[in-house]
Amino acid sequence: MVSRKTDHGRGSALAASPAAPMQIKGRLWLEKDGETFLSWGRVVLLERIRDLGSIAAAARSMEMAYSHAWSLVANINRLAGEELVSRSFGGKHGGRAWLTPAGEAVIAQFWNLVDKFQKWLETQEAE
Amino acid sequence: MVSRKTDHGRGSALAASPAAPMQIKGRLWLEKDGETFLSWGRVVLLERIRDLGSIAAAARSMEMAYSHAWSLVANINRLAGEELVSRSFGGKHGGRAWLTPAGEAVIAQFWNLVDKFQKWLETQEAE
Repeated sequence: MVSRKTDHGRGSALAASPAAPMQIKGRLWLEKDGETFLSWGRVVLLERIRDLGSIAAAARSMEMAYSHAWSLVANINRLAGEELVSRSFGGKHGGRAWLTPAGEAVIAQFWNLVDKFQKWLETQEAE
Repeated sequence: MVSRKTDHGRGSALAASPAAPMQIKGRLWLEKDGETFLSWGRVVLLERIRDLGSIAAAARSMEMAYSHAWSLVANINRLAGEELVSRSFGGKHGGRAWLTPAGEAVIAQFWNLVDKFQKWLETQEAE
């Protein structure tokens, strides 16, 4: 199953200003043509699809409406210019779904960027 | 008046994936004790207070309820552990308001951090 938290904030302690220590928090997302392409939540959705094998199960696990998950997947595939999620049709809720190699690559790229961002936040903490 | 846009997204072009170029967008904010201390919107509110001389006028300029702006200012002052915004009472809507030197310093610190973040995003673009 999925171990990564859906918490959006990534933080690091900043030694500055009086009283309690400040934390710098941040969020990253990717856009294409001015539209959101990948965000934390969308990447978690892709991971759930990979782990659970269907868009319906992934949506349920995130307490997201199936129709919303479906439209996010359609949007992600369209903006990617290729399928990141493939589906076999038939069955209730459109059958099975899985990630393509391009989908796996995009997830890895996103977490890699998030990790670099986290490291950057930590360098700010040190100042 | 205030020239800085209230647009939250800071982006840079990323040469990757098919079709249109991707943009990495990001947002930063500061927390104290797990509460939001400063965000883009809050800093703009502080700048409007500085520029317009009252919380009421600042709120109006941002189409924000006066009561909301007032509670944000109270919250910011409390979390800072000192006054960042000072107020003279009396008159409708509590009179005049201005930034303390600590308030000015915090704004400068925030934009400095945002600028460094922007530069970091640009380094990601180059990869």
